[in-house]
Amino acid sequence: MPRYQAPVRDMQFILHDVLSIQNYDNLPGFSDAPTDLIDQVLEEGAKFAENVLFPLNYSGDKEGCTRNSDATVKTPEGFPEAYAQLVESEWLSLSADPTYGGQGLPSVLNVAINEMQSSSNMAFSMYPGLTHGAYQALLAGGSEEQKQTYVTKMINGKWSGTMNLTEPQCGTDLGLIKTKAVPQPDGSYKITGQKIWISGGEQDLSENIIHLVLARIEGGPEGIKGISLFVVPKHIPNDDGTPGERNSLSCGGLEEKMGIHGNATCVMNYDEATGWLVGEEHKGMRTMFVMMNEARLGVGLQGLAQAEIAYQNASDFARDRVQGRALSGPAAPEKPADPIIVHPDVRRMLMDSRAFVEGARAFIYWTALYGDLLHKSPDERVREKAGDYMALMTPVLKAFLTDRGFVTCSDCLQLHGGIGYTQEMGVEQYLRDARIALIYEGTNGIQALDLVGRKLAADSGRAIFTFFKEMDDFIGENSETAEMKIYLDALGVSKKQLEEGTTWLMQNGLSNFDNAAAASTDFLHLFGYTALAYMWAMMAKTALEKDDGSDPYYANKLKTGRYFIERMLPKAGAHLEMLKAGSESMMALDAADF
Amino acid sequence: MPRYQAPVRDMQFILHDVLSIQNYDNLPGFSDAPTDLIDQVLEEGAKFAENVLFPLNYSGDKEGCTRNSDATVKTPEGFPEAYAQLVESEWLSLSADPTYGGQGLPSVLNVAINEMQSSSNMAFSMYPGLTHGAYQALLAGGSEEQKQTYVTKMINGKWSGTMNLTEPQCGTDLGLIKTKAVPQPDGSYKITGQKIWISGGEQDLSENIIHLVLARIEGGPEGIKGISLFVVPKHIPNDDGTPGERNSLSCGGLEEKMGIHGNATCVMNYDEATGWLVGEEHKGMRTMFVMMNEARLGVGLQGLAQAEIAYQNASDFARDRVQGRALSGPAAPEKPADPIIVHPDVRRMLMDSRAFVEGARAFIYWTALYGDLLHKSPDERVREKAGDYMALMTPVLKAFLTDRGFVTCSDCLQLHGGIGYTQEMGVEQYLRDARIALIYEGTNGIQALDLVGRKLAADSGRAIFTFFKEMDDFIGENSETAEMKIYLDALGVSKKQLEEGTTWLMQNGLSNFDNAAAASTDFLHLFGYTALAYMWAMMAKTALEKDDGSDPYYANKLKTGRYFIERMLPKAGAHLEMLKAGSESMMALDAADF
Repeated sequence: MPRYQAPVRDMQFILHDVLSIQNYDNLPGFSDAPTDLIDQVLEEGAKFAENVLFPLNYSGDKEGCTRNSDATVKTPEGFPEAYAQLVESEWLSLSADPTYGGQGLPSVLNVAINEMQSSSNMAFSMYPGLTHGAYQALLAGGSEEQKQTYVTKMINGKWSGTMNLTEPQCGTDLGLIKTKAVPQPDGSYKITGQKIWISGGEQDLSENIIHLVLARIEGGPEGIKGISLFVVPKHIPNDDGTPGERNSLSCGGLEEKMGIHGNATCVMNYDEATGWLVGEEHKGMRTMFVMMNEARLGVGLQGLAQAEIAYQNASDFARDRVQGRALSGPAAPEKPADPIIVHPDVRRMLMDSRAFVEGARAFIYWTALYGDLLHKSPDERVREKAGDYMALMTPVLKAFLTDRGFVTCSDCLQLHGGIGYTQEMGVEQYLRDARIALIYEGTNGIQALDLVGRKLAADSGRAIFTFFKEMDDFIGENSETAEMKIYLDALGVSKKQLEEGTTWLMQNGLSNFDNAAAASTDFLHLFGYTALAYMWAMMAKTALEKDDGSDPYYANKLKTGRYFIERMLPKAGAHLEMLKAGSESMMALDAADF
Repeated sequence: MPRYQAPVRDMQFILHDVLSIQNYDNLPGFSDAPTDLIDQVLEEGAKFAENVLFPLNYSGDKEGCTRNSDATVKTPEGFPEAYAQLVESEWLSLSADPTYGGQGLPSVLNVAINEMQSSSNMAFSMYPGLTHGAYQALLAGGSEEQKQTYVTKMINGKWSGTMNLTEPQCGTDLGLIKTKAVPQPDGSYKITGQKIWISGGEQDLSENIIHLVLARIEGGPEGIKGISLFVVPKHIPNDDGTPGERNSLSCGGLEEKMGIHGNATCVMNYDEATGWLVGEEHKGMRTMFVMMNEARLGVGLQGLAQAEIAYQNASDFARDRVQGRALSGPAAPEKPADPIIVHPDVRRMLMDSRAFVEGARAFIYWTALYGDLLHKSPDERVREKAGDYMALMTPVLKAFLTDRGFVTCSDCLQLHGGIGYTQEMGVEQYLRDARIALIYEGTNGIQALDLVGRKLAADSGRAIFTFFKEMDDFIGENSETAEMKIYLDALGVSKKQLEEGTTWLMQNGLSNFDNAAAASTDFLHLFGYTALAYMWAMMAKTALEKDDGSDPYYANKLKTGRYFIERMLPKAGAHLEMLKAGSESMMALDAADF
């Protein structure tokens, strides 16, 4: 039977030891979160994920969601009760703004809690996940009245939120949106159109659903410059804050998907639904991007989270399943065969998974801490760096973690042999669920374009040059420690490769955009491997400092880091070589000849 | 809507132009297959795959198989009729031995037909595919009476065949088999035990099902040396060759799988079922390996076949879907946006897919031709080389083609964006179906061990040294042709890397088997990329010879080959670097610490 145990120890190692978040106790929220409180939150979060969400993961996948004849949607058995507990325990408001009822704790702590929820039940965790994104957008772009009306209800999940971007003719290219908004004398708008792939567009969990909808105000500019953002509640709020009149919008159908069956992916029909403008006319994309950037980090986290649960179950299986004998002689002579964990090629899959998961966790928590600093640091230079890093790392985290997370799920399925392909072990579900994360909130190809086209070039490359300098400084500061040599040498090589890729892009991508686009995915992967090499070097430093020989945890960190360097990092060089090939052979065929 | 069009042109290019199979018309079977006959078979095979099998692919996946209360199994709607046509048209006997009713045509032609059937409906094609493997095993190990009784009925599919290896406690390690065989006075055996994952173990397609079952004769040696092979028919044949008395075996249940839903994967219960020994007592593995090697080539072909259909649909989608504008300026200004095929990162996924599919096709057809030479050449040296190559290439084809085939399906899904994740476009099915191929008939990890542990070392490395020399000769013979330079240079580099990997294995793997096993998967991938580099060099040579400028087909071959070299082959170097790391960091953790 599959299991999930929240990796609390590893989370503590990163939060307390690597990131030393206790050092930020001068910042709002952090001052309320001493080490023991953080540990308590992690323990409670683990219980909720393990005992409430995880038991519904498999059954939710089997049962899926059902649209009833009255256009209501039934989520899987047990989801409404679990959701009520989520609201009750205020998990959703952990790091939310206290002005609107949030608890104001560090968002890096929230990321750990989200990881647990996503590992234990990805389909379920998308309901609160999107609500979180939606109220962030309202906080960023909404009026004070909208914040009071909606955010205070959404912050703990009593009301939920959705993002309505996609239409049948447009996904990536939102300039093609047709949904229209007609201004009304009372200042509201009538929204009409069809939106697709709306996660949680209809469900039986929350008492109201607040749709954020991109639409075009009649008579506005063409293309992306004429898109506005609207808040369109399922039930129009009464003055007393209760959900009132039913708005004229409904779920027209559910998508039949490869995975995340427990999440209702809706076709939403808006038929002169009443909505209100969020922020300025025709400037909807700006606010939507707040939501999207937030969501992209969350999607990267899903890649890590599915890899984590797949890894846990693969390592259990590798210890339990006996088959064949160790090449070096029987390891369990009392058994009919040895556990398969004795076989190097089984280890390879486990170590690939482990080295990825632990490195990815450090990478996303490290970035999330900059999210806190961006909003909370009193130091302008710190905020600038934090903003630069959040912008630069977001596409890398989204695409690299989901891409490698999917590969990890596939490796963990593989380790199971035939039974991994059946529904018995759960791992095929992790693979199917993980697959969506490469696509939504901007496909991984779009992330790569965002990275090379926007993020690298912003402020003359300030963000990536700061990152290069940070890695150089780290290497310099630790070069006296002999045990750090293998980690620093590897980081040095990888950093140089990333610099070389960056230089190549500057020399070849500006004059020929196709070169930049052709290089984008390889560049993003080169970046991802380098960032993980930096994380492993930082974790090695911490592990060396903490290791007093009493606990194999630290020695295992060092061993896993070494494995990453020897057995995964060499791929970075191949990505550099491939990206430098330019766009010519990629674009050589006529479109008709494919 | 998904489509499938058999890549007949590409098959002809490989069979006629690259492999020049018309030059083998001195061999049996080849003499009956002039170019025009081969083309006719390909055209007819294409029609059958496109018009009969493909329309049942999606519906078969949706409906799946059902086990009735009487333990019979219903295959999806339309499968029985399609199967009847398959038998009627004698597709199954195309390259089978004429002594038992086969048509005796080259098996390399049969591989092309199998590719079509697998692309168009993988789940369906497994029924005849396993029958093919089963009668090959009977031909190799059975008595003349068994051949007359069974093979003559199986050769066209009227009776089908299965392989019964796996039991709950053993998959890879068949020495743990518990199914027992008790000798009877009449020379038959009573077979008792449970077998799992039996593809086509029960179905409503053929009038009889011939199970080949591995079991342990009571009192025989322990472990793998006590395993014998039995033929256990569902209906015991009457003397007149009709199916007679029902044997005491039945389907105890169907597995719920991630994909290949149209194929019935059965739990088979044998309850003192009557069976007959095939070949010698306790020597069952030897004959089973005939079947398995055959089957492994077929599984490699499935990797290619699913990649092919995924690629076809991805390229259609990339031409049809409009979204965004080309970076170099609008390509279709009359439309609201450009087709996404203008975007380099979309091209990357298409070109990766195409370069893999075309290279893999050449690799597997080229190997299959050695299969013909092994059985048919009058020249002993040719047969020796053919046997060496078949043995050496089989694990590479099985694992590399399924591994990269799965990645290709995933890329083609990715290219579709959100709709690729739904069941609407078919591509998520190709991915789910393709996933099993990395596991069955020996996991890809087992293939890698077979390659480095057995195949490399056999006859002091004769096979791989012959392969090295063949590549060197090819480079030498073509070095005068200037247009060949990029292909030959790349092949030279890659070949050298494979040699270096081989040398490393010899120096480090013999003294420490863990080193060999730790290196095995990377070595196999290094081999796969090198083999494809050789295929691309051969195809480039042929394309240069044939290209008179009248047909872009040849120029496209050259461009795709160049793309392979620039954008895929660099991964070979990373695999070399990783394999040379040895087993230390891979094995460093205690099993309990995972």
